Amino acid sequence: MKNFDANDIIYAPATAWAMGAIAVIRVSGEGCIDAISPDFKTANRKHSLSERPSSTATYGSLKNLDDCVITIYRGNKSYTGEESLEISCHGGLQTVKEILSYLAQKGFRKAEGGEFTLRAFLHGKMDLTRAEAVNELIKSRGEAGKAMALDRLNGSLYRRIESIRSALLSVMGKIEVQLDYSEDEIGEDLTFPSSEVILCISRIEALVKSFSAGRLYSQGARVVICGRTNAGKSSLFNLFLKQDRAIVSPVKGTTRDFLEAQCTINSIPIRLYDTAGFRDALEAEKLEDGIEKEGIKRSEELVDSADLIIYMTDASEPVDDSFDMSRCIKVLNKADIASEMSFKAPFDSYLRLSVNTGEGFNELCSFLSSKLEEGITLPLSGDPVIENERQKDNLERACSSLKAALDKEEQGLPLDLITVDIQEALEALGEITGEVTTDDILDNIFSNFCVGK
Amino acid sequence: MKNFDANDIIYAPATAWAMGAIAVIRVSGEGCIDAISPDFKTANRKHSLSERPSSTATYGSLKNLDDCVITIYRGNKSYTGEESLEISCHGGLQTVKEILSYLAQKGFRKAEGGEFTLRAFLHGKMDLTRAEAVNELIKSRGEAGKAMALDRLNGSLYRRIESIRSALLSVMGKIEVQLDYSEDEIGEDLTFPSSEVILCISRIEALVKSFSAGRLYSQGARVVICGRTNAGKSSLFNLFLKQDRAIVSPVKGTTRDFLEAQCTINSIPIRLYDTAGFRDALEAEKLEDGIEKEGIKRSEELVDSADLIIYMTDASEPVDDSFDMSRCIKVLNKADIASEMSFKAPFDSYLRLSVNTGEGFNELCSFLSSKLEEGITLPLSGDPVIENERQKDNLERACSSLKAALDKEEQGLPLDLITVDIQEALEALGEITGEVTTDDILDNIFSNFCVGK
Repeated sequence: MKNFDANDIIYAPATAWAMGAIAVIRVSGEGCIDAISPDFKTANRKHSLSERPSSTATYGSLKNLDDCVITIYRGNKSYTGEESLEISCHGGLQTVKEILSYLAQKGFRKAEGGEFTLRAFLHGKMDLTRAEAVNELIKSRGEAGKAMALDRLNGSLYRRIESIRSALLSVMGKIEVQLDYSEDEIGEDLTFPSSEVILCISRIEALVKSFSAGRLYSQGARVVICGRTNAGKSSLFNLFLKQDRAIVSPVKGTTRDFLEAQCTINSIPIRLYDTAGFRDALEAEKLEDGIEKEGIKRSEELVDSADLIIYMTDASEPVDDSFDMSRCIKVLNKADIASEMSFKAPFDSYLRLSVNTGEGFNELCSFLSSKLEEGITLPLSGDPVIENERQKDNLERACSSLKAALDKEEQGLPLDLITVDIQEALEALGEITGEVTTDDILDNIFSNFCVGK
Repeated sequence: MKNFDANDIIYAPATAWAMGAIAVIRVSGEGCIDAISPDFKTANRKHSLSERPSSTATYGSLKNLDDCVITIYRGNKSYTGEESLEISCHGGLQTVKEILSYLAQKGFRKAEGGEFTLRAFLHGKMDLTRAEAVNELIKSRGEAGKAMALDRLNGSLYRRIESIRSALLSVMGKIEVQLDYSEDEIGEDLTFPSSEVILCISRIEALVKSFSAGRLYSQGARVVICGRTNAGKSSLFNLFLKQDRAIVSPVKGTTRDFLEAQCTINSIPIRLYDTAGFRDALEAEKLEDGIEKEGIKRSEELVDSADLIIYMTDASEPVDDSFDMSRCIKVLNKADIASEMSFKAPFDSYLRLSVNTGEGFNELCSFLSSKLEEGITLPLSGDPVIENERQKDNLERACSSLKAALDKEEQGLPLDLITVDIQEALEALGEITGEVTTDDILDNIFSNFCVGK
């Protein structure tokens, strides 16, 4: 594994890399408190960092770098499970940069992404499902996805997996007891606890099924608004952003490109695209301008990769029959001002909307979220939900091993052959929680984390 | 003053509004610990927030919102000088949003920008020069500006002002002693301590003079690179950003606009512009395209508002004599490959540079910073430097009052008339530190702060 020496003192900014009132820099590793203590002048000489108890915050002056508060944690009281400290300094980037280079000069090492959490795992502070949940929680957008991640952080998934593992261990026990005796002693009726295995399979399958919901609520969906010029696409785009009281950040492309913004609709995180360029797609053939063509090509790629398309028209235009409507939510704008008489096309299957008055907007949101939830098994309340590809892959591996075991049993193969499959399932589940692990697995997991966590 | 009720419990995010490993939310006001304590479940029941001592960090679960660390401060141990706490939570925006709305539901009020520091001032934790330094420190870019702000935070400016004030108070004392006695008693030779007043004036003037340096190092300068197509402007732009090891954020405008980035050159914060559009300015007359023209207009505005212009040419082109070179640093690019023979124009006054090899770049940087420092009095080491318009205005007010006092004395006007001017100077100095203050002054100062500070 790259550079993950667990004995180094590591450091990293823990707060976002942008100006704020304060910023926090994390340092972790045995000896870090004593190393920094001489450079930290506190108002009260008795309160040198080295002499302060664990979990206390001390105000002082860190060299000539800043006046800041340092909170120290000793032994396993810390997030990482080892001696560590947090420097809470003034949140200007210049100050943060200077403190980081001070820490480098002390001989500490800049932490890799996720390295603090890796140490927490290595010190037994959390299993892998919780470690992954830390990252998922931070990246979550929308209430539902965040609640699911917090639930995993609190061990819901860990407990579920452990409970399945323990059921499988009991299955193994029952089989091994029989293998330990000769066939003569218990007769020929070796019993295989099929029903228990079947129950484990169904419990694992329920977790696998939760993946689609977990992913929808964590990663969200790409929704593209398209339609002809002047249909009101940009007004709808703004309506979505305004409705969502969250902070939105419309990323403006070039004027010939598209607009992009994040919002949540009924707790589903949405990446919303307004295809300003797409309006001309239908006339694209005529265009000579390379840039213009490139813009249109990008809009088309957007539409192709969209989870859902909102096709907007304003009733005064004929329906564009060159466009594949099967993946679209069809919306008829300006329903308030257009009289049915003026419609040039039949709009029975269209949702009516007025972007000006907002009429019909809530219905559109409901329809949109129900469309996105189509085919997704929503989890029962209290059940853990996964959103993590690695966990899903291991669950599927466990599942097919158990199914293989059942098959072999049906074919009358010997029990000791069957235990190999159950062992494989146990291993797959163990990889999820971190009972079974390799450097590669850890490297893969933690390299996805943001720095400072 | 708008809404600055000092008795409310206030809250605000204290870290930058962006995803990070952790985020910190500040809460301040009497009763805030007891209000949150019942909602905060700690692993160890004995450690309810309410029972924890001041300056301790406690890990626990805040309702169903997040697992976080809350650090509490009682009485005047806190930044604000009143009971307060800091919630250090997982740094996902969804989590931060939910905790903020939880705090709103508790009946706490969202803090105005700077309100935490305002409270620190009101509770006597810092004078106004230090309070302003907090904000200046956060916003500082570049080493020098940051060091100057930190110096003010540590009271250098406060002590200087107080020392001038106390000298003036002693002047006042000497005058008042004389006023208390009848002319008969001390004879007609009323003595005015002119030399002491003159000394005060020169000390104040030194502070006023430091403003230009303070402002240069805090707010930096706008430097615009321009010149003809293919002169190597963008390569120079990139060279500046690469040289500066800082994190840079080139803000890309539309392709027809200009590039903008921040860097520091010899500790001076620079806002650097690459005028991609400007190259065509000379041929602008011919253009019909409105957008293109708009782009060029913006480039011209940039040039007009620049503190310094780098005019680049690559020796193969004739010098553009339509361009006003008086404010320009003239740079001759590709000095490495161009033979002097091929020069179409005399380049004696040009700095030689090769953007490819970097040759001549350090010389350009030195020349650039010395140009920017031209006419600026660099402060003596250890002397406080101001960068703040409000402080400068008050210093100038104090200065002209004292000069008026000297004038009156020269004209032989009575001492009691002169004391009015000295009183006025004392008041101006008092406004700087906050000895003398009004709601308007406070409102003006703190409304410039970022939220959470």
